Amino acid sequence: MVLDPVLLAQDLIRRPSVTPADEGALGVLRAAVEPLGFVCHPLRFEEAGTDPIDNLYARWGNGGRHFCFAGHTDVVPVGKIEGWSVDPFGAEIIEGYLYGRGAVDMKSAIAAFAAAAADFLADNPGLDGSISLLITGDEEAVAINGTKKMLDWLKAKGERLDHCVVGEPTNPRAMGEMMKIGRRGSQTGYLSVDGVQGHVAYPHLADNPVPKLVKLLMALGNGAIDDGTPHFQPSNLEVTTVDVGNPANNVIPARAEAVFNTRFNDIWTGESLEADIRRKLDSVGVEYQLKCVTSGEAFLTPPGELSALVAQAVEAETGRKPDLSTTGGTSDARFIRYACPVVEFGLVGQTMHKVDERVAVADLLSLTKIYRRILDGYFGA
Amino acid sequence: MVLDPVLLAQDLIRRPSVTPADEGALGVLRAAVEPLGFVCHPLRFEEAGTDPIDNLYARWGNGGRHFCFAGHTDVVPVGKIEGWSVDPFGAEIIEGYLYGRGAVDMKSAIAAFAAAAADFLADNPGLDGSISLLITGDEEAVAINGTKKMLDWLKAKGERLDHCVVGEPTNPRAMGEMMKIGRRGSQTGYLSVDGVQGHVAYPHLADNPVPKLVKLLMALGNGAIDDGTPHFQPSNLEVTTVDVGNPANNVIPARAEAVFNTRFNDIWTGESLEADIRRKLDSVGVEYQLKCVTSGEAFLTPPGELSALVAQAVEAETGRKPDLSTTGGTSDARFIRYACPVVEFGLVGQTMHKVDERVAVADLLSLTKIYRRILDGYFGA
Ligand SMILES: [Zn+2]
Ligand SMILES: [Zn+2]
Repeated sequence: MVLDPVLLAQDLIRRPSVTPADEGALGVLRAAVEPLGFVCHPLRFEEAGTDPIDNLYARWGNGGRHFCFAGHTDVVPVGKIEGWSVDPFGAEIIEGYLYGRGAVDMKSAIAAFAAAAADFLADNPGLDGSISLLITGDEEAVAINGTKKMLDWLKAKGERLDHCVVGEPTNPRAMGEMMKIGRRGSQTGYLSVDGVQGHVAYPHLADNPVPKLVKLLMALGNGAIDDGTPHFQPSNLEVTTVDVGNPANNVIPARAEAVFNTRFNDIWTGESLEADIRRKLDSVGVEYQLKCVTSGEAFLTPPGELSALVAQAVEAETGRKPDLSTTGGTSDARFIRYACPVVEFGLVGQTMHKVDERVAVADLLSLTKIYRRILDGYFGA
Repeated sequence: MVLDPVLLAQDLIRRPSVTPADEGALGVLRAAVEPLGFVCHPLRFEEAGTDPIDNLYARWGNGGRHFCFAGHTDVVPVGKIEGWSVDPFGAEIIEGYLYGRGAVDMKSAIAAFAAAAADFLADNPGLDGSISLLITGDEEAVAINGTKKMLDWLKAKGERLDHCVVGEPTNPRAMGEMMKIGRRGSQTGYLSVDGVQGHVAYPHLADNPVPKLVKLLMALGNGAIDDGTPHFQPSNLEVTTVDVGNPANNVIPARAEAVFNTRFNDIWTGESLEADIRRKLDSVGVEYQLKCVTSGEAFLTPPGELSALVAQAVEAETGRKPDLSTTGGTSDARFIRYACPVVEFGLVGQTMHKVDERVAVADLLSLTKIYRRILDGYFGA
């Protein structure tokens, strides 16, 4: 292999790029792909009130069909350091597993793709087509200065993507089980009720907001809100917190707040979901304040050329026909879907965001071969 | 007058005896009543994990009927100092009002009683009876090292009280409107539900405790829980706080908690109230933890000799027939009722616990005369 995916993954893991820090991670990737002929565009974005973020767009070729691989070099914090049996940024290989924060989510997948591209380009030096890497340092946190702004930048430059694979971990337990062809949307609701503070011994002089909030939450419900669609599981609402913060048990509080999050399928838009929620809350007949923030709409890349190509590559390598799923959390595919058809396939997610995050070296090599097969299929090689 | 109630009230207010501090307040009282023939017993109580508290039991006489006046020299904090138009411990008199923390609750009432007793004893030096002051420094906070332990001490010494008046502010707006012949009980319930933490995108792997708590609170209700009794208003439950404290809107929390307080009348005991609450909660069919803490049982001193005596003294002085009420918060009468019949009468409570707490000097003088009339009536003078 022109580029060793395991060594590159180790190099990336050794850069402690916990969002918003980069710590040289993107430089490692750039140093690996620039010699292959990728033209690199380091993109630093910032915005008042947010951390400046480094991103990297790297493109091989100028024309033809344009295949993009998207991912992120930022990682979540290590969490309880006592829980780790290794240095989270040591990238040690022990009994066939490469350990470290980002080993699964998703530095190894970036390494796999870079290695697959290097391999493919070594065999196809005269390719009439383009391959790009769209790598952000802002996926795990607020995602404000990352993929979204990179896509704006691409659009402004007239750079068009034709198809994209995002390398997020998609397999629950074993390579080949699952790919993603869409994602549910996510909306957070901030609900509050104002009352009038007073002493519990004189309730007629006060107005307790808590029982009102309880009634609203009862009307709102919790759990599935529909029956799902052919490609999506049921939309699901979870009340994530209720807070009053009143330490005095002889005082009726002035305000009560709750937050809930809905992961919604393509029956809904953020707008129609909010309308449905307000209808439920209005039925209670008490005054409330509600602010709904949709961080991503539901989207589906309907089964077709791209999903078939990826599924075939996965099956050829693993012997498994992957589920075409839309489950799980959000990813930057929610932004990319506005630019081109996008699907996701990566490693086994079991240890992501946990202590002792690790990838089987065999899985990393298998993923590299899958990505190579995708490039072969895409460019008809 | 042998003892000027206004000067004594001022002296007391100038000691910033915010619970648990005494700052010499009890010493001021002792210096005022010892010359009258009161035998003083400074009583300091402490207990692991609590602040040591100074209290004072002072008794005139050795035998005959024993009339006790109970109160507290501790005061609540001044609160927002910017809100005060005077020094909270300056005890200034401005346009007929004596200002200061404790002016109403309840240093002035202590001064009124000491002055009334001085006056009465000057006229009745050979009284065959006993008059005592039971004054604690621990009423406004936890009330652990105060009246309760003083009563234990009295019992151990074989000191028997026959009747007691507590000098808490009882009048809503004007002197003579209201006296208290009992108080509701108070019980606080600590309710919690445990669940299993998880990601909102994978609710099947988690168990959200919030909707369970919402259902429990819905079953629990809020507000009146009975129709009241001849001497009591309806018992009333208020949910005072609900707390989850989960800052992450993509995380299903592991635990949800609520606190509620019930002010209950003599239909209930703390025990029967808890049983009723558990019956309501059990009807929901979810697991919960509940701890109920009763800080005082409801009690009533049925209208009779003592209430008639006080009511007559109030009416003779103010021209108003006081309501025999059981409304409002708790007081140390909840402890004294186990020792002897007890009622409460004091100043106008409007400014208690607020900025610019103040008593009309005229009210203080009127209260002194009322207490004197009570002593006259009690001892048949
Ligand atoms: Zn990721
Ligand atoms: Zn008081």
